[in-house]
Amino acid sequence: MSDGYNNRNGVTIWRKIAEYKPPRSWRSWLIGRPLQTADAPHQTISKVVGLAVFASDALSSTAYATQEMMVILAVAGTAAFGLVFPLSFAIVGLLAVITISYEQTIHAYPTGGGSYIVSRDNLGAIPAQVAAAALLADYVLTVAVSISSGVAQIVSAFESLFPYRVEIAVVLVLFIMVVNLRGLKESGSLFAIPTYFFLIMMFGTVILGLIKYFTGTLGTVVDPPELELTHAAQGITAFLILRAFSSGTAALTGIEAISDGIPAFKEPKSKNAGITLIWMATILAALLLGISFLAAHILAIPSETETVVSQLARTVHESRGIVYLATIAATMVILIMAANTSFADFPRLSAITAADGYLPRQFTYRGSRLVYSRGIMALALLACILIVIFNASVTRLIPLYAIGVFLSFTLSQAGMARRWHRVGTLQPGQEIKQRGSTLHFDPAWRFKMLVNGFGSVMTAIVLSVFAITKSADGAWVVIIIIPILVFTFSSIHKHYQHLAKDLSLDHFGPPPPIVRHRVILPIGGVHRGTVAALRYANTLSDDITAVHVSIDMQEAEKIHQKWETWGEGIRLVILESPYRLFLEPLLQYIEEIAAQRQPNEIITIVVPQFVPRNWLSNLLHTQTALQLRLALLFRKNIVVTDVPYHVD
Amino acid sequence: MSDGYNNRNGVTIWRKIAEYKPPRSWRSWLIGRPLQTADAPHQTISKVVGLAVFASDALSSTAYATQEMMVILAVAGTAAFGLVFPLSFAIVGLLAVITISYEQTIHAYPTGGGSYIVSRDNLGAIPAQVAAAALLADYVLTVAVSISSGVAQIVSAFESLFPYRVEIAVVLVLFIMVVNLRGLKESGSLFAIPTYFFLIMMFGTVILGLIKYFTGTLGTVVDPPELELTHAAQGITAFLILRAFSSGTAALTGIEAISDGIPAFKEPKSKNAGITLIWMATILAALLLGISFLAAHILAIPSETETVVSQLARTVHESRGIVYLATIAATMVILIMAANTSFADFPRLSAITAADGYLPRQFTYRGSRLVYSRGIMALALLACILIVIFNASVTRLIPLYAIGVFLSFTLSQAGMARRWHRVGTLQPGQEIKQRGSTLHFDPAWRFKMLVNGFGSVMTAIVLSVFAITKSADGAWVVIIIIPILVFTFSSIHKHYQHLAKDLSLDHFGPPPPIVRHRVILPIGGVHRGTVAALRYANTLSDDITAVHVSIDMQEAEKIHQKWETWGEGIRLVILESPYRLFLEPLLQYIEEIAAQRQPNEIITIVVPQFVPRNWLSNLLHTQTALQLRLALLFRKNIVVTDVPYHVD
Repeated sequence: MSDGYNNRNGVTIWRKIAEYKPPRSWRSWLIGRPLQTADAPHQTISKVVGLAVFASDALSSTAYATQEMMVILAVAGTAAFGLVFPLSFAIVGLLAVITISYEQTIHAYPTGGGSYIVSRDNLGAIPAQVAAAALLADYVLTVAVSISSGVAQIVSAFESLFPYRVEIAVVLVLFIMVVNLRGLKESGSLFAIPTYFFLIMMFGTVILGLIKYFTGTLGTVVDPPELELTHAAQGITAFLILRAFSSGTAALTGIEAISDGIPAFKEPKSKNAGITLIWMATILAALLLGISFLAAHILAIPSETETVVSQLARTVHESRGIVYLATIAATMVILIMAANTSFADFPRLSAITAADGYLPRQFTYRGSRLVYSRGIMALALLACILIVIFNASVTRLIPLYAIGVFLSFTLSQAGMARRWHRVGTLQPGQEIKQRGSTLHFDPAWRFKMLVNGFGSVMTAIVLSVFAITKSADGAWVVIIIIPILVFTFSSIHKHYQHLAKDLSLDHFGPPPPIVRHRVILPIGGVHRGTVAALRYANTLSDDITAVHVSIDMQEAEKIHQKWETWGEGIRLVILESPYRLFLEPLLQYIEEIAAQRQPNEIITIVVPQFVPRNWLSNLLHTQTALQLRLALLFRKNIVVTDVPYHVD
Repeated sequence: MSDGYNNRNGVTIWRKIAEYKPPRSWRSWLIGRPLQTADAPHQTISKVVGLAVFASDALSSTAYATQEMMVILAVAGTAAFGLVFPLSFAIVGLLAVITISYEQTIHAYPTGGGSYIVSRDNLGAIPAQVAAAALLADYVLTVAVSISSGVAQIVSAFESLFPYRVEIAVVLVLFIMVVNLRGLKESGSLFAIPTYFFLIMMFGTVILGLIKYFTGTLGTVVDPPELELTHAAQGITAFLILRAFSSGTAALTGIEAISDGIPAFKEPKSKNAGITLIWMATILAALLLGISFLAAHILAIPSETETVVSQLARTVHESRGIVYLATIAATMVILIMAANTSFADFPRLSAITAADGYLPRQFTYRGSRLVYSRGIMALALLACILIVIFNASVTRLIPLYAIGVFLSFTLSQAGMARRWHRVGTLQPGQEIKQRGSTLHFDPAWRFKMLVNGFGSVMTAIVLSVFAITKSADGAWVVIIIIPILVFTFSSIHKHYQHLAKDLSLDHFGPPPPIVRHRVILPIGGVHRGTVAALRYANTLSDDITAVHVSIDMQEAEKIHQKWETWGEGIRLVILESPYRLFLEPLLQYIEEIAAQRQPNEIITIVVPQFVPRNWLSNLLHTQTALQLRLALLFRKNIVVTDVPYHVD
C-alpha cells in the first residue's frame, strides 16, 4: 500500500501518525514535552530509597500527632498534658498490631495489596467500594492536613506570614500538582534527601532533648503561645482521653503506603518491602514517643500560631538560630513530601477503580506525561477546597482525618483474615487465582488468620472510638460522604454495565437498511450560506423540504420570491410564528413530519451555519444549529447536521 | 393542499402553527403568558398622565441634587452651604436654556427626536454613535443612582436597614426588571398616582417650610448626622464651586425623556408634548430652588446615613411621624419610577441602534410579552453591577452621572442647529425627507438656529466643566467607556456589513454541484452505536472509510476482527497514537484526506454519539463529536454529523 498506509496482519495502519510531533505550548513549558507510551519508566528502588519514598506520609504525622492530642487535653488544664506520653504508648501498641498485619499482606500480595484490592478479592464489591471511598477521602485529607501543618511550621518561624497561610497552602498544593503533572521520574533519589534530612534533624532534636532532660538541663518553653480552648474547660474524663487518643491516631496514617508500592522494590520485592515497613514503624514509634515525652516536659502549649515541634526545637536548641530553622525547614519539607505521596496514591487508586467501572473512565487515561493527569488535578482541587473551607487549620481538619484510614485498615485486615480462611481449605500444591494475587497452600494459615483477624478487630474498635468521640467535631462529614461516594460508585458501575449491554452486538441482528432519507432545510433567508447548505443537502437525498419560520409575512413573501430563483425547484414551507418564537414552530413541524414517518426512514435537519473568522462575532448571531441539536438530541432517527459557511 | 398546508400567493404555509399554545412554565408565571405579535397595544395619553409618565426621572433628581452639591461644599465647612441656593439658580438658568431648545426639537421631530435620531439625521454616523453610547451609559446610571437614592430614603427612615442597602437596591432593580419583562400596558394611569403623590408631599413640605421660615418658626435639624468629608478640608475656590455646580447638574437628567416619547401623546402630539415639557421644567425649578433654600436654612448635613430630604421633612414636620414617613415614601417611590423610565428608554434605544446594525441584532427581538427583553435584562444586569461596585452610594455614583446626559444634550442641540441651517436653504413649500423627520420651509429658521446653537454651546461648556472638575472623582471612567462603546458599535456595524456582502447573491453564480462525497467514520469500538452510524453513513455515500485511533494495538486488533463481521466490507484504517491523544491523529488524518481532495468534493465526518437518558451521565463519556466539531469548524467543505445512539 502507498500513501503512508501499512498493512500488518491484514490491518490497515496509517503510518504518518508516527511522525507526529506534539506542538510546543504553554502546557509543555509548564509540565514538559509529551511522552510516548513506550517511554514509560521501569525502575526499582532499594530499601533505603524505598523508606524515603514511602515513609514520608507516616513519619511526617509525628509533626502534628502530639500537638493534636494536646489540643484536646487542654480543656482539662495544662496538667492533663502529662497524659500525652502514655497515650503515645497506646498508639505505638496499635502501630505494632497494624505493622504485623500489613507485613503479612505484603507477602500475600507481591504485586501490590492496597485496601481496595484486598477487599475486592476477598470481601466483594461493596466492601471494596467502601475501602476505595475511605481511601480516596483520606488521600485528599492527607494533602490538606500535611500542607496545613507544613504551613503552620513556616508560620511558627515567620509569624508575619500567619494571615497568608491559606494562600501559601493553596500555592503549595498547586506547585505539587504541577510537579506531579510533569511526572516524577527521578523521584527515588530526590526523595531520599529531604526524608533523611528530616530524620537527622528530628532525631537530633529528640536525642539532644533527652540528654538535656536526663542531665537536668532541659528548660521550658520561653514565651509560649497563649492557650486557645476549642471547647469549654472540663475535668479529665474517659471520653476526653479517648478523644485525645483518636486525635493521636493521625500518627498512623500512611502506614499502608508500602503495601501499595511493593512492585517498586528491588527483588526479593516482598521481603525488602516488609523489612522497610518494619524500619518505618520503628522510626515512627521512636519519634512519636520522643516528641510526646519532651513536649510534656518543656510545658509546650498547642497553638495555631506556633507548632509544638517549633516550641520543642527552640527549647532544645535554646534559640531561634540556624539549627532551629533547619529543624523547622526539614519538618516543613517532609510534610510537603507527605502530601506528594497522596499525589501518587490518589490518581493510581482512582485509575484502578475507574478501570473497574466505579469512576468515570477518563480517570484511566494517562496524560501527555504518562501520569493520570485527571486524578492529579481532581486531588489538587479537592484539597484546595478543604484548605479554604477549614482555613488551613490542622486542628479543624483532624476530626475528618484518620477515620477513612481506620476504615480501610479494618477492611483490609478483615479481607486478609478471610483470605487465610480460604487458604486453609487448600491442599499442599493447590492454588486459587484471584484478580490481585494467587492463594497458595500455607500450613501457618491459622496463625496468620488470627494475626490479621486481631488487627481487624483492633482497628475496628479504634474506628468506633473515633466515630463516637469525633462525630461532633466534624467526623460526621466523612461518615456521610463515604456512603454517598459508595452510592455514586455503584451508580456509575450500573451505568457502564447497562451501556455495555445496550451496545453489545451479541444476539443483535443487523438492522435493515434505511429506505427513505428526508432532509429538512431550515432557512432564515436566501443567501450564499443557504445555497451552500442546499448544495450539501442535494448530496444526501432527493427528498428535501426548505422551511422558513416567519414572524413577518412581508419578509416571508420576499424570501419566497428569492427562493423561486435559487431554490432549484425545492418546496419551501413557511411556518408562521405569532409568538415570535423560532425554535418551537420548527420543532413542531419536525415532530409532525417524524410522526408520519415509515419504519427505516431517517430525517436529517441540514442547518446553514455562519462561521465568522473571529469567534467573538458569534455573539452577534443566534446559535440555531446548536439549539436545534440540543432540542432534538433525545428524538430517535433524527440527525442534525450543520453546514458551515465561512465568512471572511 | 391537505395536511394543514395552505397556499397564499403561491407560498406554502403550514397552518397548524397557528394552533400553537405556548406551554405554561415558571417563566409565564413570573412574567405572564406570551402575547401574539398582533396583540401590541396602541394607546395615547393626556398631558396630565404624560407628565406623570415622563417627568419622574427629571423630578426625582431633586431628591439628591441639593445633597450632592452640599457634599462637595462640605470641604469648605458648613458655612459654604449658603452657596447651594445661588448654585441652584444657576442650574435653573441652564434648565431654561435646555427646555427651550428641546421645545423646538419636539416640534421638529413629531415621531420622536431622541439625541441619537437627531444626531444621526443631522450630524452623521459617528456623532450618532457617540450620542447612543452616552445615552445608554446614562440610562444605566439613572437606574443605579435613582435606586441608590431611593434606598437611601428608606435607610433614612429605618436606620437598621443601612447594612443591607446593596441587597435592597439589587432586589429593587430585579423587581423593576420583572415588571418590565411583563410589559407595562396600563403604565399611564398607574404612573400618575405616585408622581402626583410625590408632587403633593414635596410641594407640601417645601411650602410649609417656606411659611415657617418667613414666620420665623422654622427650626434647625435636630440631632443631625455627622459630617463625613470625602476630601480634605479646604477653602472656597472657584474650582470647588464649579465642582458643586457639576454635581447639581444631576437635576437636569431626564429632561430629554419627553422628546423621545412624543408619539405617546394625544393629538396635537407635538403641542401637548411641548406644553408638558414646560410644566415639567417649571415644577423641577420650583422644587430644586425650594429644597436648596430650605436645606441651607435648617442647617442640614449631607450624609450617607440620612438624606437631606429626610432631614428637611422631619424638621419641617417637626417629627418622624406619619407625614414625614409619607414624604419619604413618596420620594422613594418617585425614585423607583425614575429607574423604571430607563427600563423603557434603554431597551428602545438599544433596539433602534441594533436595527441600524450597531448592536447585536438580538436586541431588536421582542420577547414573549412583546417587550425588548434582552435590553431590559442587559440594563438590569449592568445597573446591579454598578450598584455593587459603588456600594449603592449616590455620592460615589454622581461623578459618573450627567456627563453622558450633557454630551447627548450638546449633540442633540448641535444637530438641531445644523438642521435649521439646512432649513434655511429651502424655498417655501420645498421639503427634504430625513430618516427621522421631514424638513419644511420655516421663515424663523435663523432664530431657531440661534436658540439651539446657544443651547448646544451652553451644554458643551457645562460638559467641559463637568469633565474637568469630576475627572478625578470617577468621571474618567465614562470618558474612557464612551469611546470604547463607539468603537464597539463601529466594529459590530462593520461585521454586519461585511456579512451582508459575503452572503449577497448579487453577481453570484450558482456553485457547481458536489461531485464526490467522502465519508469518514471514526469509531472507538464496534458496537450497536457504530452499526447505527454506519447504516446512516451508507445513505450519504458509497465512499466510506472507518477510522480507529489506537493507543493499544492489541485492542485495535480485536476491533479489526469485529469489524470484519460488522463492517459491511468497508475499509478500516488504524491510526496509532503514541502520545495517547485521540483528536490530534484523527485531525491529522482528516487534513491529509482534505489536502488530496479535488474541487467540488466534500467530506462528512459521521461520529457515532451515545445519548444517555440522564444528562449527568454525559460526564462519564468523552464528547468526541463536540470536540471534533469545534476543531473542524474553520475548515472549509468539511461537515461533522453526529448520529445519536440512544441508550436507555
